[in-house]
Amino acid sequence: MTGSRIKRIFGNLPDDIGAILLYNGSEPHQDVNFFYVTDLTKGLFENSAAVIYPDGTGTIITSKLEEESAGKSPLNLEIFSSKKEFRECVKKALDVDGKIGINFEDMPHLSYRKFKYMVRGRKFVDVSESLEKTRMIKDRTEIERMKKAGKIAAEALKAMTESLREGMAEYEAAAILIYEMMKRGATGPAFETISSFGENSAEPHYTSGERRLKKGDFALFDFGARYDRYNSDITRTFVAGKADKKQREIYGIVKEAQMAGIDAIRDGVAGPEVDAAAREIIEKAGYGDRFIHSLGHGLGLKVHDGGGLSPRMKMELKENMVLTVEPGIYIPGYGGVRIEDDVLVKKNRAEVLTEFPKELIEL
Amino acid sequence: MTGSRIKRIFGNLPDDIGAILLYNGSEPHQDVNFFYVTDLTKGLFENSAAVIYPDGTGTIITSKLEEESAGKSPLNLEIFSSKKEFRECVKKALDVDGKIGINFEDMPHLSYRKFKYMVRGRKFVDVSESLEKTRMIKDRTEIERMKKAGKIAAEALKAMTESLREGMAEYEAAAILIYEMMKRGATGPAFETISSFGENSAEPHYTSGERRLKKGDFALFDFGARYDRYNSDITRTFVAGKADKKQREIYGIVKEAQMAGIDAIRDGVAGPEVDAAAREIIEKAGYGDRFIHSLGHGLGLKVHDGGGLSPRMKMELKENMVLTVEPGIYIPGYGGVRIEDDVLVKKNRAEVLTEFPKELIEL
Repeated sequence: MTGSRIKRIFGNLPDDIGAILLYNGSEPHQDVNFFYVTDLTKGLFENSAAVIYPDGTGTIITSKLEEESAGKSPLNLEIFSSKKEFRECVKKALDVDGKIGINFEDMPHLSYRKFKYMVRGRKFVDVSESLEKTRMIKDRTEIERMKKAGKIAAEALKAMTESLREGMAEYEAAAILIYEMMKRGATGPAFETISSFGENSAEPHYTSGERRLKKGDFALFDFGARYDRYNSDITRTFVAGKADKKQREIYGIVKEAQMAGIDAIRDGVAGPEVDAAAREIIEKAGYGDRFIHSLGHGLGLKVHDGGGLSPRMKMELKENMVLTVEPGIYIPGYGGVRIEDDVLVKKNRAEVLTEFPKELIEL
Repeated sequence: MTGSRIKRIFGNLPDDIGAILLYNGSEPHQDVNFFYVTDLTKGLFENSAAVIYPDGTGTIITSKLEEESAGKSPLNLEIFSSKKEFRECVKKALDVDGKIGINFEDMPHLSYRKFKYMVRGRKFVDVSESLEKTRMIKDRTEIERMKKAGKIAAEALKAMTESLREGMAEYEAAAILIYEMMKRGATGPAFETISSFGENSAEPHYTSGERRLKKGDFALFDFGARYDRYNSDITRTFVAGKADKKQREIYGIVKEAQMAGIDAIRDGVAGPEVDAAAREIIEKAGYGDRFIHSLGHGLGLKVHDGGGLSPRMKMELKENMVLTVEPGIYIPGYGGVRIEDDVLVKKNRAEVLTEFPKELIEL
């Protein structure tokens, strides 16, 4: 499995690259590609490297502390116990003909300089685009993990709504969501959970605070589970008590737009076309200027992974990509509605990974 | 407050630096220094910059989505709505005499290249050491936040032990810890919670899994709260049921070592001396080769922040530094004990920020 991932990375690159050096630095500078090529689902692996080759093989260079976890990868293993040994392992692994591929996007500049000095004279080239492009098409193992991450988030949301009640603070609902996800096997939340009530739901980047749920509030939850390092990302918006006419109207438009977006997805379609399918519905309803972000983004080992659905992003959807579809309408001072699912692109349709009812739920 | 932080950063640098550019990139490439100088406790601020000057002033360059959150900072604000505007704002902010300071440690290489091209001809110098050194000495606001983060973790641990029982899985205990921290105001866990039972407690880097608590197990919890972006980090080890002689012996040694480490802390003491105070006790008891890591690390906006307590790290402790003190004994296949507190360095002593009993607790 890691062999075919590695071969696909090199397949997206010119053939004068002899090896790619991936470096997983200190917190917070993780390189998800290190985990993509090693398929290591457990462990921190700070300051560890992986060197991969066009034939699909590779070597993990890590410290004694990670030796046991590292053994679970099919790649070769070199254990270092000092900085000097680390440098020697890296030099040895990079002692092949050709240029050296580096992930310019994720490697900190200081690490870049250190590696440059370690193998001075060698040519470094940026392979970040190839890495991102390769990771956009998920293999079977990745799809299984993403399905599980989606299922965990949807189930946790259901469990949380059962204890959600008037007077509960946003952070408390967020805490319950995380608890329910971890109880179902998530290693943690995929990102900082958004739990926003009433007028706070109008701010797409709000996380959670002290605001307590009141009758008549929108209650918006945008969160996800991390499972074996893969992320899910789901949003649902509820109404506390009986929804009024305006709430029903806005909710209905967003729901229709979201379903139209999902319906437009299939292998070969252009991203802007999917965005437009959803955006037109919101525009026609007169809320075009209240849908202030793109329709969706790629999802995988990162929460905002390669690609996306927006008027400007000229990408073609391909089978086995995973994307979010998340239109919203935001009215400052009043509130907002967003509905988001993760979908797997199939030949002729989209498969939803975050199964949860879409009718307006009045709590 | 941010003014004095900024002046202290420049005070640790040669005076030919006219401005420092801090860039908070896309997930996961946050630069905590962006938050340090802006004092922004809420918001994501992906792809935002802060430019700071020797006189203690600075400018935040961020997008419309973050405008409201950004307004809470005392720094100036420039809002961009396109990449072109972002570049213009950066160029304008950097249009001062002198070299430009860059955080080589946290800036991704690709961003470095983009900025280099944006202001071509200007000299970039690495200021990462000065940033780290400045952040090591906490000011009053930071200390208040760290005290709160410590208190939240200690209280959550107490609450969790009340529901911990035989048959509970590691991940379930971890989920409860996070829930209890968030209920008390944490924005989330400081890092992936370690909840390890029985033989798993012998692996310092284990996180949590399916293992269920059995009578006679060690139950080790290493976790922390994030509060207003500041972290706490606490470890306690319990015994499920009655501890046997060997468990009591190991626990007693670790506890004695941890207390000796804390006792050795004061303004002016050398880090290796503090490490030795704890390490000697474990060595004399015959477990020297089972204490396989340093005694502690700096703590703040990062979990492993600048400095630490180890035989090799030649640092001098100074008033208002915050460090962890966390000796451990690990016996593969059997189990391990670690006890960890966060301490604030005072003139003549250490103040513990994570108040929780240290006697062996039998659950």
